[in-house]
Amino acid sequence: MANFGFARLSLAAPFAEHWREARSAVGAPHLLQNARETSTLAEAVAECMLIVGTGTLTYRKAEQLVVPLPELAPLVAAEFARGGRVALVFGPENHGLSREDLSYCHILVEIPTDTQQPSMNLGQAVAVCLYELATRTAELPAAPPEVTRSLAPSGTLDRLAELIEQTMAAAGYSPHSMQAANRHDLRLLLRRLQLNAQDMRRALGFFRRVLWRLANRGR
Amino acid sequence: MANFGFARLSLAAPFAEHWREARSAVGAPHLLQNARETSTLAEAVAECMLIVGTGTLTYRKAEQLVVPLPELAPLVAAEFARGGRVALVFGPENHGLSREDLSYCHILVEIPTDTQQPSMNLGQAVAVCLYELATRTAELPAAPPEVTRSLAPSGTLDRLAELIEQTMAAAGYSPHSMQAANRHDLRLLLRRLQLNAQDMRRALGFFRRVLWRLANRGR
Repeated sequence: MANFGFARLSLAAPFAEHWREARSAVGAPHLLQNARETSTLAEAVAECMLIVGTGTLTYRKAEQLVVPLPELAPLVAAEFARGGRVALVFGPENHGLSREDLSYCHILVEIPTDTQQPSMNLGQAVAVCLYELATRTAELPAAPPEVTRSLAPSGTLDRLAELIEQTMAAAGYSPHSMQAANRHDLRLLLRRLQLNAQDMRRALGFFRRVLWRLANRGR
Repeated sequence: MANFGFARLSLAAPFAEHWREARSAVGAPHLLQNARETSTLAEAVAECMLIVGTGTLTYRKAEQLVVPLPELAPLVAAEFARGGRVALVFGPENHGLSREDLSYCHILVEIPTDTQQPSMNLGQAVAVCLYELATRTAELPAAPPEVTRSLAPSGTLDRLAELIEQTMAAAGYSPHSMQAANRHDLRLLLRRLQLNAQDMRRALGFFRRVLWRLANRGR
């Protein structure tokens, strides 16, 4: 990250012992010392407008738009031009991002690797992605392409998703066993909808009202 | 290397114990098992037509053309188009390539890194360079640019350099204390000259003759 001028590192639920050691090591770089620690990925990306998941797609089916790494820079630059924050999300070394982690992502980026050996070392994948962003962003033409992205930060989408979920439960919309699957699909859906700030205020108000009404039937 | 489809690894004078362990480890990849081991860098690159040095230039002055990494792919593609082999040379993790190592290189490649933290981890530098070559080569237009490169393989240039050096010594050309500096400059010079196969045959024949004559004065 320091090699390519990136400064904001967030760790979601890091393995406590290793993280404490790394951060407090003599000579630990500024970047580690200033890293933010959150208990969930949702919290880490709550302020972000474009969330980009990484990892090999060899072993799973993508549920979002997949962008080859060489085409990522224009999308990130477009988001910056709108004043939004972007998160690039990497999973743990051993198993990568979970399907749940990926449901917070608007797009997935794929590093073009050899089919014989698609899975990269974490540190090398980070270096390659940041090199690409740092280098290609400098080469960009004026008008970047558009990508489907939400117009509200991730945390606000999560608040709406939670309200809708509570509403589903309160309304007896579907059996308890479907709850996890519904939550997952809802998260993906809300990220595709491109709700703007006003849409969000309205939707939040609406579902709060519905929920209140469901909880207070007969009043 | 395997991630980006590169197959030929050569190690010049590796630390024997670590190398033996890595290579014989259970599950050591094909690439490591088939790696070539040489005692010198000269030997490792002897068959190559374009030799590209890597490393940060923050702490030394370049003696060759410096190419930013995003501009390397066309040069490598042009060499492949001529049927030549290309070597990308990386130094050891702790101190990088020596000035002597760099004297075997036709060009130096520089990864554009942040001035606050220019020095990269070896494995990450390798990943970034190979990603760049694999990705940008696929995007190349038809006619690649030209770069100054020798038209004879490195090993042949070394044979000529050695003959010239022996000739210098036999002729009492310069004091013994200058020998290392002369060798270094000669190596760089021969790589800039673009001698073709016929030039090389002639130069080798010529210096052999001169050397023989110097050794047999008076005959």
